Amino acid sequence: MAVFLLANDDGIHSEGLHVLCNHISKLGKVYIAAPDREQSACGHAISLHRPLRMLERKIPGAIQAWEVDGTPADCVKLAIEGALIPEQPDLVISGINRGSNLGTDVLYSGTVSAAIEATLIGFPAMAVSLCDPPGDGFELAGEIAAKIASALLKNNLPKNTLLNVNVPGVRREELVGITVARLGRRQYSKVIERRVDPRGKVYYWIAGEPVLNNENDTDIDAIIQNKVSVTPLQFDMTRSDIMPAVSKIIEEAGSFQFPI
Amino acid sequence: MAVFLLANDDGIHSEGLHVLCNHISKLGKVYIAAPDREQSACGHAISLHRPLRMLERKIPGAIQAWEVDGTPADCVKLAIEGALIPEQPDLVISGINRGSNLGTDVLYSGTVSAAIEATLIGFPAMAVSLCDPPGDGFELAGEIAAKIASALLKNNLPKNTLLNVNVPGVRREELVGITVARLGRRQYSKVIERRVDPRGKVYYWIAGEPVLNNENDTDIDAIIQNKVSVTPLQFDMTRSDIMPAVSKIIEEAGSFQFPI
Repeated sequence: MAVFLLANDDGIHSEGLHVLCNHISKLGKVYIAAPDREQSACGHAISLHRPLRMLERKIPGAIQAWEVDGTPADCVKLAIEGALIPEQPDLVISGINRGSNLGTDVLYSGTVSAAIEATLIGFPAMAVSLCDPPGDGFELAGEIAAKIASALLKNNLPKNTLLNVNVPGVRREELVGITVARLGRRQYSKVIERRVDPRGKVYYWIAGEPVLNNENDTDIDAIIQNKVSVTPLQFDMTRSDIMPAVSKIIEEAGSFQFPI
Repeated sequence: MAVFLLANDDGIHSEGLHVLCNHISKLGKVYIAAPDREQSACGHAISLHRPLRMLERKIPGAIQAWEVDGTPADCVKLAIEGALIPEQPDLVISGINRGSNLGTDVLYSGTVSAAIEATLIGFPAMAVSLCDPPGDGFELAGEIAAKIASALLKNNLPKNTLLNVNVPGVRREELVGITVARLGRRQYSKVIERRVDPRGKVYYWIAGEPVLNNENDTDIDAIIQNKVSVTPLQFDMTRSDIMPAVSKIIEEAGSFQFPI
């Protein structure tokens, strides 16, 4: 019987996680390790400088569910490497996130980082997000997540690869397809708001409205077209193609003589 | 005159930042935006759900220095997009971090995420870290950072690319060279420690000892050989080569019919 570990960044009490659990529990045994509170935009943070506590919770459909006072990546690390769960997962699924994780925004995403952490440790993983507005909500996204999960059980992804899935926030009948797409580039206007508090002191909010860009074949474009987007991700950020050019830049600087 | 923005994840009071500022101020005007406290392993977190405060500080060599109560990526966003600093930087440098940022560990790195944030916004950037043990300490790393920075002012990196620089923690005369290397894979043993507190309750620490791996041509290997490693990074994590295979997996699942 297939074994699943679910995590997220919206916290253990979030609807997206519970709906995901309900759908995935039809495919196999479900374990959960999720943060005790919302951790959005926490990136791939891990907690090195403080102890982590966990508490067992009851979630319908899950064999065991752990609430952890850490980040999404902490949850996955603790569940698998800390052996919170008694068996190794066949697939780790992070989500269903409330809100999209598209394009370069995956760099900030706690949802995606939980899936990356699983892949780093050596387990197949996917992240699932539901774009705004919710449309038919988490139910439709949960159904789609379960279909993709069951495809992944039959056909393994290559090592060191995970899937990032975004479901458009539309009604069931508006959904026109599913497509494999590359990450787009998310750009924002009016990124920072400067405000003055009641005591006359300045503070800032990170805000930002997504700027529509017209690049084809991206995950962002897929969502605009009311398609589910599926993006295979890897975590080696080396830009190998320019390594010779960088060597040249450094050599031409001409000031590196060793011993220095 | 060249304009630099410095950031880090060890906080505005850290020695690595001050030494970097001293060396870089010989090349041009230096602005600083750094966290008010240590933010190690914070990944690419940004603060969306609370206001950010900043305070001006005096740092020798810097024209203006801001302390921000946020993450390294927040600092760069606020400095540039929030116009905390009055001009745009020619180069953003994050560091000098106390401790290495090698291989897959860059995913967790606040130091590297500050440089990635700068690149995302559209500015050339590099991250600089000093590996343990400190050897001749930050001075040597600062000197090397300044040499690479001055090379980057003369020869631009391609767009959407940053450099990740690690300096071995050795004495000056032990340093044997500088090399452009791909990211290695950091692996750890004994990753999680389970402990019991004085009240009998269980807690966990994320620990882990790096496992030596023998892959050649990686940044990890360069440091073992007492060489400065320079890795060009990009932030598009799409694994394009397997997109057709992923399409096939999803099609073969056979259960996607639209309207769903």
